[in-house]
Amino acid sequence: MTEKTTIYDIAKELNITAATVSRALNNNPKISQSTRKLVLETANRMNYKQNRLALALRSGKSNNVGVIVPRINTNFFASVIRGIEESLHPEGYQVIICQTHENENREIENINTLLNAQVDGILMSISNLPDENNHYIERVVQKNIPLVFFDRKKEIKHVSSVTIDDYQASYQTTQHLLEQGCDKIAYFSGDRSLEIYEDRYRGYEKALLDNNIPINKDYIITIKSNVVEGREAVEKLLALDNPPNAIFSTSDFAALGAIQKLKEHDIKIPEDFCVFGFGNEPFTKFMELSISTVDQSPVEMGKMAAQVFLDKINNVDKKKSGKTVVLMPKLLIRQSSTRI
Amino acid sequence: MTEKTTIYDIAKELNITAATVSRALNNNPKISQSTRKLVLETANRMNYKQNRLALALRSGKSNNVGVIVPRINTNFFASVIRGIEESLHPEGYQVIICQTHENENREIENINTLLNAQVDGILMSISNLPDENNHYIERVVQKNIPLVFFDRKKEIKHVSSVTIDDYQASYQTTQHLLEQGCDKIAYFSGDRSLEIYEDRYRGYEKALLDNNIPINKDYIITIKSNVVEGREAVEKLLALDNPPNAIFSTSDFAALGAIQKLKEHDIKIPEDFCVFGFGNEPFTKFMELSISTVDQSPVEMGKMAAQVFLDKINNVDKKKSGKTVVLMPKLLIRQSSTRI
Repeated sequence: MTEKTTIYDIAKELNITAATVSRALNNNPKISQSTRKLVLETANRMNYKQNRLALALRSGKSNNVGVIVPRINTNFFASVIRGIEESLHPEGYQVIICQTHENENREIENINTLLNAQVDGILMSISNLPDENNHYIERVVQKNIPLVFFDRKKEIKHVSSVTIDDYQASYQTTQHLLEQGCDKIAYFSGDRSLEIYEDRYRGYEKALLDNNIPINKDYIITIKSNVVEGREAVEKLLALDNPPNAIFSTSDFAALGAIQKLKEHDIKIPEDFCVFGFGNEPFTKFMELSISTVDQSPVEMGKMAAQVFLDKINNVDKKKSGKTVVLMPKLLIRQSSTRI
Repeated sequence: MTEKTTIYDIAKELNITAATVSRALNNNPKISQSTRKLVLETANRMNYKQNRLALALRSGKSNNVGVIVPRINTNFFASVIRGIEESLHPEGYQVIICQTHENENREIENINTLLNAQVDGILMSISNLPDENNHYIERVVQKNIPLVFFDRKKEIKHVSSVTIDDYQASYQTTQHLLEQGCDKIAYFSGDRSLEIYEDRYRGYEKALLDNNIPINKDYIITIKSNVVEGREAVEKLLALDNPPNAIFSTSDFAALGAIQKLKEHDIKIPEDFCVFGFGNEPFTKFMELSISTVDQSPVEMGKMAAQVFLDKINNVDKKKSGKTVVLMPKLLIRQSSTRI
C-alpha cells in the first residue's frame, strides 16, 4: 500500500545491489567511504526514510510503551496516564493507550496489539481476566518485555505492581464514619473477584468488627460505578425495616447518585445521613455539597509505575522477580460526611 | 532482548537452512509437503509464533487504527473514542490512542509513533499545529494511509473531516440568551487560531449584530478550559463599569468556575445572570443548578469518523479527495439559562 522509496529503488538508481545499499545505510565496514557517501546522498535526494519499526525489529527497541486501562474517561485513569507520560516522555518514550471496557477479550486483544506494535513495555490495570487466561500475561513475561500492573493487579510471577493500600483506605473511611456517629453504615462494593474490591471490603468489615458492630448483609450492595446504580441502591436501602444512616461507596459516581436520591427523599446530608465516595473525581469537589472521598494519588501512581518500568528496562533493577510498591491513600473529608 | 524461537532455531533443530524454514512457513510451493509438515510440527513444538507485525510489514495491513486527541480526560474526547471503537471493533480493527496535551511537538511525535506502529489509518483531532509543519500531516497522505480529522481540523488536501457546525451552535446559543432578556452577553473564547473557536466567535458576533447589539470588546475574554480561568474571568467582568448579565462560555469547566464565582458575589442565576457552557460534560447535568450547554454528539462524531475511514480503506469511497461531514449541534437548555 505504501508508495515510499525502498532500498530497491535506490539500488536501481545507482545500478548496484540492494544488499550493497542496505550495508551502506547500516554503516557496514565492508562498504567503501565513497559508495556510502553516494548511497546516502541518493537516499536523501529520493526522500528515503529508514523505517524505525524495521530498525526496531532488528534492535529490539521501539521506544513505545503501551498502557492498558479499563477506560480512559475517569479522572483516576486519565491522571495515572498523565503521571506515566510525565515520567516516560523525558526519557524518550512515547505512550500508546488501549482501553478494555473491562472486557476480558479486549484485554487479550490489547496485549496482542501492543506486542505486535513492538512496545518496549506494558503498564496495565487489569480487568477481570480469569486465571485460565493468565498465559496471555505470561507470554509478555516470556518475551522479556517489562510488565507493570497498576491499581488493579493479579499475582503473576515476575510481574511488578504499583497499588494503593485499599484495605487501609477502607478501614480508615469506615472508622471516620463511625466517629461521626454513624452506626449503620451501608457499603457499595465493586466486583469482589477483583483484588482491590476484596481488599476494600475487608477494610470495611474489619473496622466494624473492631468497633463491635455486627455485619448487616442487607447493607452490602454490589454496584457498577455509575450514578444510576447509586440511585437504585438507595431505594433498596431506604425500603429496609432498619435503614442505614451512612453509605460508604467505593465509587464516586454511585455516591453522587446516592446523594441525589437521598435529597429527593428530603434526607439531610450530613445531619441525618453521611456519604463517602472513593476516587476523588473532580465533580466531588465542585458540588454545592462537596463529597468526601478517597484520593488514590493517581499521578504519583503513574510516575511510580513508569519508574519501575525504567528500572527494569535500564537494568537498574537486575532481579528477575517483580517489584511491589504500595502507596498510602489520603482521605479527603468534605461536607458530605462532616458532622463534628 | 526477546528470547522467542526464531526461524534460525528451527533451522538448527532440523539441520536445514533458515531460508527453507521461512519458505515452508510461508507456503512457498517450492517446498515439499513432507518438509512443510516437518517444519510446521517443529515450529509448533518449539512454540514459534510468526510475528504479526512482520507479516504486516509485508502485507501492508496491521488492523490497528491510531487515534490522536488533545487529551483523553474530557467527556467529549473519551466519548468520540468510544464511538470510534464501537464502529471499528466489529470490523476487526484495534484502536490505539495517543494524547498531545495540545503540544505541537507531541502531535508530530504521535503521528510518527503511529506510523511506526504500522497503523492502517489515523483519526485525529488536531491541536495548534502551525502551517509550516503541515508536511508531517501530508506525509501520512503520501503514504496512502487514510487520515480523518474530527472536531478540530485543518484544511489539507485529501484529508477528510467530521465536525459539528460550531458557528450554528454559537449563533443559536447567543440567540437563546437574548430571548431570555440578556442584552449584555460576555463571551469566553478558546484560542481563535483554531478553526472551531473562530467559528464559534463568528456565530456569537453575527447573532448580536443581527439583533442590533454592538460588540463590546471588554466582554470578550480568551480563556483556557478550566475552572480557575472561569473564576478569574468573572472577577474581571464584575469590575467593569458596565458589567454583563450573561456569559456564554465555550468551555463547560470555565462556565462552572464562573457560576461558583457569581454565587460568591451573591448574584442570582438565572434571575440576574444567565450562564451557558459548551461540551455537555457530565457534571453540567449533576449540579444542583444544572448548567445549560451545547451537546456535540461525540459518540456519533466518532462513529462517523470511523465510517469515513472504513469507506476509504475498503475502497467504497474511491475518490482521492477528502470527505467533509458536518453534524448539527444540540442546545441543552437547563436551569442556568432558563428565565422564561
